[in-house]
Amino acid sequence: MKSPREIVDLMLREDAFSSLLTMKVINVELGYCELTMQVLTEMTNGFGIAHGGITYSLADSTLAFASNSRGKQCVSVDTNITHLARVNAGDILLAKSKEIHVGNQIAVYEVFITNQEEKRVAHFKGTVRVTEKFW
Amino acid sequence: MKSPREIVDLMLREDAFSSLLTMKVINVELGYCELTMQVLTEMTNGFGIAHGGITYSLADSTLAFASNSRGKQCVSVDTNITHLARVNAGDILLAKSKEIHVGNQIAVYEVFITNQEEKRVAHFKGTVRVTEKFW
Amino acid sequence: MKSPREIVDLMLREDAFSSLLTMKVINVELGYCELTMQVLTEMTNGFGIAHGGITYSLADSTLAFASNSRGKQCVSVDTNITHLARVNAGDILLAKSKEIHVGNQIAVYEVFITNQEEKRVAHFKGTVRVTEKFW
Amino acid sequence: MKSPREIVDLMLREDAFSSLLTMKVINVELGYCELTMQVLTEMTNGFGIAHGGITYSLADSTLAFASNSRGKQCVSVDTNITHLARVNAGDILLAKSKEIHVGNQIAVYEVFITNQEEKRVAHFKGTVRVTEKFW
Repeated sequence: MKSPREIVDLMLREDAFSSLLTMKVINVELGYCELTMQVLTEMTNGFGIAHGGITYSLADSTLAFASNSRGKQCVSVDTNITHLARVNAGDILLAKSKEIHVGNQIAVYEVFITNQEEKRVAHFKGTVRVTEKFW
Repeated sequence: MKSPREIVDLMLREDAFSSLLTMKVINVELGYCELTMQVLTEMTNGFGIAHGGITYSLADSTLAFASNSRGKQCVSVDTNITHLARVNAGDILLAKSKEIHVGNQIAVYEVFITNQEEKRVAHFKGTVRVTEKFW
Repeated sequence: MKSPREIVDLMLREDAFSSLLTMKVINVELGYCELTMQVLTEMTNGFGIAHGGITYSLADSTLAFASNSRGKQCVSVDTNITHLARVNAGDILLAKSKEIHVGNQIAVYEVFITNQEEKRVAHFKGTVRVTEKFW
Repeated sequence: MKSPREIVDLMLREDAFSSLLTMKVINVELGYCELTMQVLTEMTNGFGIAHGGITYSLADSTLAFASNSRGKQCVSVDTNITHLARVNAGDILLAKSKEIHVGNQIAVYEVFITNQEEKRVAHFKGTVRVTEKFW
């Protein structure tokens, strides 16, 4: 059976969008993941701040790596994100997952995103379906 | 007071991320928006399908344009998305908003995303805070 | 195979809580349900309005009946509710479901709740897991 | 200014529904609340387990007490709950809140619900609007 790090390396190799958004893995453990990325000017929206899709994408990748790290392939079902503070171009974001529940059919994680001043900018909660397919 | 189309044009002019993702406006009316985009290979994830952030970003832009089209600036608070079917590179996505509630302090919209075969691939629900600031 | 109405009758017979809250079935069809209930003074909270659990419970029963009416047992996974307007003791609530997605593993419904003045007071979205067990 | 305990006592005095469901306050501190309740047979649904509205109502009361304990009146906007395990008649539930964000306009809390075996049965996330009205 593959280790959490091996699984995430396999996933990352194909993950063009996470690369495009400059995401980097800080840490991966069983059921846990920590990612970072820098907000570029190409990632801003009509208000001159980071598009909501930026923190969402970072959180969604963190969810994918954390949940798949346990060995079985997991597919995102329901996710929600609450935007808590402005994210500006130049900000460096850090996403950390927390495991809420691991069941046979579903698993639930939350992801906290902070900026370089350790201010919390978004909170994400995601439910994944746990499949029977191993990495 | 600006028209829905004028507001969305103003927002789009600065919206680097929506442009990066190739989003195009099909239709904008008071409290309504319809966007399209094509899924490029740069938008795929570790499973070889579109990253969850792609449909989310498309829905979030649709929410922003639909809610701001009413004249007051609206800020996204809580959003959730349910992924219903695979989205592949090459797919052409269509997002249509529906207004659920317009209040003095909050407004609620849903966004349905379909692919080129008119199959529903994602359902999004978003709550925005309605500010007192006019466009 | 049982009809939608037979399934809901079976469920209702055991559903002590829906009875306690005075819920009544107005209509049931394949994948659809419509319920009504009256808000009693026992259902109010510390602000003198209906407790958030009242509209949630009504919506959750509507979801359960609508999703199970298709013949396979469905179990609620993720649900969210947005409270849109005050609900007072004496109000008569009407809940109507709408099917967003029916898949092999999950199904998604929304429920709109209005009061006796046809004002929308809550919007609910629910994802259920579709099991292989028939009613 | 009133203390957290004074505010919750004021709220509870009027909260007929929380009383009906047998909820009891275990602990209240600034931005924190812990409630318990017993699941009665009147609270079950068509599957013979606790109606989804039971854990939701317990979590929603916990959210209300935790967020209002800070002194300003808070109104629930968006809430979601993920059902993680069966809840049976006779179970004794414990709900504990955790503060995710306290802002000028919105605040976000999560609530974890466990049973008498310390098994997690539900996870709730709630966003409230913080008003300018003091208790």
